[in-house]
Amino acid sequence: MANCESLARQLGLKAVLIKDEGRNPTGSLKDRPSALLVIKAREAGARIITTASSGNAGGALAGVCASVGMKSVIFVPSSIPRAKLTQLQVYGSVVVAVEGSYDQTVELCMKAGRHFGWYQRSTGYNPYTREGKKTAALEIAEQLNWRPPDKVFVPMGDGNIASGIWKGFRDLMALGFIERSPRLIGVQAEGTSSIVDAVNGDGVVRESSGSTIAGGINVTRANDPTMAVRAIRESSGFGVKVSDEEIRTAILGLARSSGVFAEPAAAAAFAGLVKSCEAGLVKDGETVLVLITGTGLKDIEAPGKRLSEPLRVAPDLNELERRLGDEGIRR
Amino acid sequence: MANCESLARQLGLKAVLIKDEGRNPTGSLKDRPSALLVIKAREAGARIITTASSGNAGGALAGVCASVGMKSVIFVPSSIPRAKLTQLQVYGSVVVAVEGSYDQTVELCMKAGRHFGWYQRSTGYNPYTREGKKTAALEIAEQLNWRPPDKVFVPMGDGNIASGIWKGFRDLMALGFIERSPRLIGVQAEGTSSIVDAVNGDGVVRESSGSTIAGGINVTRANDPTMAVRAIRESSGFGVKVSDEEIRTAILGLARSSGVFAEPAAAAAFAGLVKSCEAGLVKDGETVLVLITGTGLKDIEAPGKRLSEPLRVAPDLNELERRLGDEGIRR
Repeated sequence: MANCESLARQLGLKAVLIKDEGRNPTGSLKDRPSALLVIKAREAGARIITTASSGNAGGALAGVCASVGMKSVIFVPSSIPRAKLTQLQVYGSVVVAVEGSYDQTVELCMKAGRHFGWYQRSTGYNPYTREGKKTAALEIAEQLNWRPPDKVFVPMGDGNIASGIWKGFRDLMALGFIERSPRLIGVQAEGTSSIVDAVNGDGVVRESSGSTIAGGINVTRANDPTMAVRAIRESSGFGVKVSDEEIRTAILGLARSSGVFAEPAAAAAFAGLVKSCEAGLVKDGETVLVLITGTGLKDIEAPGKRLSEPLRVAPDLNELERRLGDEGIRR
Repeated sequence: MANCESLARQLGLKAVLIKDEGRNPTGSLKDRPSALLVIKAREAGARIITTASSGNAGGALAGVCASVGMKSVIFVPSSIPRAKLTQLQVYGSVVVAVEGSYDQTVELCMKAGRHFGWYQRSTGYNPYTREGKKTAALEIAEQLNWRPPDKVFVPMGDGNIASGIWKGFRDLMALGFIERSPRLIGVQAEGTSSIVDAVNGDGVVRESSGSTIAGGINVTRANDPTMAVRAIRESSGFGVKVSDEEIRTAILGLARSSGVFAEPAAAAAFAGLVKSCEAGLVKDGETVLVLITGTGLKDIEAPGKRLSEPLRVAPDLNELERRLGDEGIRR
């Protein structure tokens, strides 16, 4: 976990903590539930374990399965970023690329799991994903010497990270490890904001109809929304919606202030923090934590045209000096 | 560090330890020296820090600089993999893509550093890179409760990781933390094997003339070769050469047995272990460690045609069953 002083100054907060789950073995928070789920699958005597995934859950399951010699069948939307697909292929999973949305991918995986009798890991179906994800909250509390931050920002697609993180803090309170829980701030993309809309509205989750560049949260029919709504409300938190442009800005803003290159879904949580500060929803002097749920190396197309082109030069100092001069760089 | 039991069984060894430096903040071992070098640059009052890099050293320097608000100019060969380039751009470094080899990239960076008065981080020029890299050895020893493995396999391009790791173990012996040092096994690609050739020959390093798919060790004119030769000889180790095909095989072999997806240069170290076992250079009952110096997510083209294509299906159970049946997968 990094304590990012420049961000704290910039946003007028006491501390901005960045917990980078991109440093987990396969590059996302999903290593936590996948490790647990493979154990549960073994307990159940399963030979094949399956999941639907926008990429990270699949990559994590594939990696854990490879490390213990279990077979996996991973369902992903065919629009998955190249690095996420390659990771699945490298680990030797059977990869089913569904020509359809994430929701259709989930549906096909659920049907196939029942039909073939595979162990089903999918988020929102298997309750142990929440138990795996809650370990991030346990670790946050431990690393902060049992003094959790005031607010924790998490991205929401299915809502399972929100409900998992909340369960972790609740468990710690029940056990007396912490005295108060952080407020949970759930962030969604504008196009796929069913959980935030429910939190801000009547609490009932309705399917959303848009989409987002952030593959990890590009979910119109969320699979763990009710518990996510409850988690945010019980913790006295709130929901935030961010645009794809705010997500792209957040990728660069976070990387250039903290050194953490986040994938779009993870950067959405940071975008949510920036927006909440601007809206006065986070107070001066608060300590906030942003949960960065996956590495940007898995989705390198996302920053798009915002990146400066490199200076392409021949191996020649005179040419270099001229080109750098054009860019205003000297000594 | 992972203790990979299936690999140990497969290779007939007591233990195969995989130290995955791909889990460092920017995805490679180079975060270690870069963190140290940015401190040294600040001590020197530098405003701009520069390095030549095949990608990882640059990404690490860019990330560390971003996190502390220092300006960096990174020189890379224009053939750098896309993810490595994107990482530099995301962190906001000035990126100079040199239309030439790694060796020409190093040369231009050295000239530019002198001409513009920038702080020079480049490997083989700045002695502190070795001091940063040695921390991997300190960590290995600490994590193994000061009982280091029998052999440590490292990839070699410039040779600086080899000399750094050896310095770490030597320091620990001098301080009485460990009683014996591991033997250091340096692995190079067949096309760029100047250091291994020197170890196996008269100890004199001569420029090599080939190339390898492993960008991180695609170095014909190594920048820290003499100390690398000395490190291997003093530790009673040896050098191994592996082909590009062996490297590609190693990427999949390692991923599918350990869950660690390594970049080609890192997988070369694992290929070297496999080859050494086949040649009888590693004995039954030994404990070996393979240093995985960077994540495979940074170079996803490398596995190439060895990956099975995903099953592309419509969201339809009947079609899925038929396609899975063709692949021999049922329950």
